[in-house]
Parts: sequence; structure tokens; C-alpha cells
Amino acid sequence: MTQLPLRLAAFHADGADRIGVVTDAGIVDLTADFGTRFAGLKEVIEGAAIPELLAAAEGRQPDCAQDQVRWLIPIANPEKLICIGVNFPDRNAEYKDGQEAPGRPSMFIRFPRSFVGHGENLVRPPESPQLDYEGEVTIVIGKGGRRIPREEAYDHIAAITLCNEGTIRDWVRHAKFNVTQGKNWDRSGAIGPWLVPFTKPEQLDDIRLETRVNGEVRQSDRTGRMMYDFRYIVNYVSTFCTLVPGDVIVCGTPTGAGARFDPPIWLKPGDVVEVEAEGIGILRNGIEDEA
Amino acid sequence: MTQLPLRLAAFHADGADRIGVVTDAGIVDLTADFGTRFAGLKEVIEGAAIPELLAAAEGRQPDCAQDQVRWLIPIANPEKLICIGVNFPDRNAEYKDGQEAPGRPSMFIRFPRSFVGHGENLVRPPESPQLDYEGEVTIVIGKGGRRIPREEAYDHIAAITLCNEGTIRDWVRHAKFNVTQGKNWDRSGAIGPWLVPFTKPEQLDDIRLETRVNGEVRQSDRTGRMMYDFRYIVNYVSTFCTLVPGDVIVCGTPTGAGARFDPPIWLKPGDVVEVEAEGIGILRNGIEDEA
Repeated sequence: MTQLPLRLAAFHADGADRIGVVTDAGIVDLTADFGTRFAGLKEVIEGAAIPELLAAAEGRQPDCAQDQVRWLIPIANPEKLICIGVNFPDRNAEYKDGQEAPGRPSMFIRFPRSFVGHGENLVRPPESPQLDYEGEVTIVIGKGGRRIPREEAYDHIAAITLCNEGTIRDWVRHAKFNVTQGKNWDRSGAIGPWLVPFTKPEQLDDIRLETRVNGEVRQSDRTGRMMYDFRYIVNYVSTFCTLVPGDVIVCGTPTGAGARFDPPIWLKPGDVVEVEAEGIGILRNGIEDEA
Repeated sequence: MTQLPLRLAAFHADGADRIGVVTDAGIVDLTADFGTRFAGLKEVIEGAAIPELLAAAEGRQPDCAQDQVRWLIPIANPEKLICIGVNFPDRNAEYKDGQEAPGRPSMFIRFPRSFVGHGENLVRPPESPQLDYEGEVTIVIGKGGRRIPREEAYDHIAAITLCNEGTIRDWVRHAKFNVTQGKNWDRSGAIGPWLVPFTKPEQLDDIRLETRVNGEVRQSDRTGRMMYDFRYIVNYVSTFCTLVPGDVIVCGTPTGAGARFDPPIWLKPGDVVEVEAEGIGILRNGIEDEA
């Protein structure tokens, strides 16, 4: 893996939710420094304080190792958590419904409750065996706005992260319209591991995005091939609603989800799913049956 | 209008957001009594304190008239705000797509930002003239739970209210799946005017729901004819996600939205839309062009 820049994490350790800065050596716990000013990373972003946290961690020894903490979803309570569907080549054709690719991106909304943090298990419910993965690059809004022009869109992104946009596949087709229920099972997906501060276009423009199940590559593509790029997405979403700091947009998955195999291959307890993107890291989650 | 029971409201007056109890004579402001314990009506419901607020208002003179305040959305920040689509007879046929009625309810999610309170204007954006109304009965969860049995569903409802589930009609068909963007324009719908405490089945089982535009009846049906009744909805939604106190579910609209006329009749500045239901009241909103 290429070396990652300093990044921000929300985690649980010693009985409390914490915020900190992650280095390759471990986690610098900044809760004592900033916890009274910022309840979480959303508030850090609202306060435009990412550089301040990075500076505070400079030269400090890590307080704990990466495997000693329980990772939380980076933004626990975004005002909005929007997902983009059907955004990579060959994804439209996968639906085999004879329809042309649409002129605008399909979008749906997930509740934070449907996600776990890095290292936690995704939960397969008793109602369906069809738990499936979708690896996606995810952006976090830093500066809010309405009708943000494409050319200014990157100025509004504070950070990037990864999402396993886990789906209960048969429940996305329960109804006439909308995938809502198949996309909102408690703890069926993951976001993380951390927030990488977004400072230059190359961090998003054309990065490799890959999903592996038990080490086998299932999805692999580059963001440069997205039908609706990050700038388009920020512009389009902000046309109808005001974006605010901390809003999370999950930007679409490449071809190769388990549903696309014949026969389909669903996730099962014991599997390990890794979503990796250049410059962001690896989001890793196991699978468990609901207790 | 039949007499309404005491009900709870969130409103803005004298420069502050307030909570109170509404009687036919006016509003009893309970902010001084409860404001430190409860930031808003969601917190009142979390604290199971509706009866306490009603008791506190008993015998008190109203502090202000209903037309002296700015009404707010009753629950400003629900963890979830879920809408049920295609839930009254003839609604499926309206789509003229030759598809059978689906076996499960269609669902989508709206952000609170897409709603205004009672008495505020809905906003028609410059991007589309197709602002449309949808009158709906709305339930607010009081007691959380997962996989709530149908027969216990009513025990989990704390209050009922109304929604004008305003829609930018052409934007619901922008994409291959999902109506998200047409349902989430800033200030395109309304919720209110208030929360009526839910204490007995007759308040929901078979009440008249009517939508009028400039006094003309456009939608009129009874909740007893809903394809998926309130008990079903609570059971179904809680199958995939844990409901929590303050969650809002907007339960579907009768036939007769403006899109169903030939030619369609869209809302325009100066129009007044009223959504009324027996025992809940009237949600009234004007229309304005975005400034």
C-alpha cells in the first residue's frame, strides 16, 4: 500500500467515544485536546478545524495501536447520507432490463444506523441470505452550499473515505419504486476506516477502487471511469438541496457485486470484505449472523 | 371542524424556538417550564413526557394566538423520516406502466430540510414548474423497537400529524431508480401543524383525509382504504431497521395529485394548499417562487 497522509478517525477506547489522528504508527488520541470543542468529526469539519487537529498530532507518539480500538463510522450523525447508484461502466447493462442508461444519476438515502465502522462485522439478518457488498469512494462535504458550480465542487469537499455499501439484495426489489428497504438494514454496510483530508484533485480524479472477498478481487475499476464524476455529483445534489458541512455522499460501485455472478455469491459468516482505494486505505469487515 | 384534543406544537416567537400546547383558544407556551429538559418535541417524546406537558397546560390561559407565531416542523431532527409511496387504491393504476401492484410498499426517505412548518410557503424552484402536492397522514414513533408485531404496532405510535409531501414531479423520474431528488427539494413540502397525541385506534383506523387547492377538493379518501395500513407499516419498516422515538413515517397519499390531471395542474405562487384529516386538523401552506 502506498503511504497515506495523516488522517482523522472516530473510535471507541477505554469506555468512551474519541477522536484522533491516525499515522502509520498508530493513533494519536486528541479527545483531551479537542473533545470539549468538538463532539465528533462532523463538528471538527463544521469548525474547519481539520488542519488544527493534524497540527496538534504533529510529532506526538501514538497513544494506541490501530488494532486496539473499536473503529466508529467517521461521521456518526450527518445531516444527509446520500448514495449514488449505477455510476460505473457496465453497471447499467447488468440490470438486463433493456433500458438505456439514464440521463441523471440514481440516488437513494441511507440511515447511519445501517453502517458499522472499520473492523466490525456486517450483520446478515434471518430474513434473507442475500447480503452483498458494494465498494465505493465516499466524499464528506466541508463547505456547504446550494447550486455549487462544477468547477468549484472540489472546494466544498473536506475529506474522503470508503464505504462498503452493503445491501440485502432481494429487499431492494420489494416494491414498485426505490431501493430504500434493501439499503437500510441495521449494520448491513460499513464506512471508514478514517477520513483522509482532501487537499488536491489527484486524490479523487482517477484512483483505483477495488473490493476483495477473502482476498479474491471482485470489483476493480478507476474513478476516472465514473459516469457521473465527483464534481458532477456535488453540483447535481446541491441543485435540489443545500449541502452542509459533514454531509456524506457515497459515490457508486464498480461492476462485480455478488448479485452479478451466476449463480449469485452472497456474503456469509466468516467472509472478510476489503474495500481499498489508492490514497485512502483499506476498509475491512467480517460478516456475522444476527444474534 | 370537529373539536381537536390538546396537541403539541413547535413554534418560533419572540426570537426563539419554543414548545407548547395548543388549544382551540391559542397556544400555551411551555418553554419556560420544560425548555431546559427538552430541546424540542423529539426530546419530549424520548422522555415519554407528552402527558406531563398536557397536564402542565391544563387550565392555563394561552400565551399567544395561533396566527401570532411561526410554526415549525414538529420534529426538527428525527433520526429517520420515511415516506410510503403508492398506498391508496387507484394510485398504482395512475402510473399506467402495465405493472401489477407490488407486493410491498414503496418507500423513500426525505431530509427535514425539504419541509416547512404550517403557514409557511412551499418554494417553487427556478429549475422546474412541476411543484405538486400530496396530502398524507403522518405518524411519530414513541416507543422504539425492531420487528414490532402488527398487533403491538399502535403501542409504538406517540402522535399523529399531517404532511404535504410536496414533490418536484419531473425530478422524481430523473434516474433509473428512486425518486430521491424529486422528493428532496429544500422547502418543497410541509409537516404539521402540530402533534396530536395518539391514544386510541379510532384516531387512525379509518379517518377522512382530504387535500384542497384554493378550496377545491383534489384528494379525498379514508385511511381505512390504505393498501398498507399503519400497523403493517410499523411492522414492515421495523423489520429492517430499528425504530427509535421521534422517527417520522409519512404514510401515503390518495389519488388526485396535480400530476394526474390532463393536462397536469402544478402549484403556483398565490395558491393555498390545505391538507385536512379528521381529528388532526388542517395543514395550510401557500406557494412562493424561490427568491
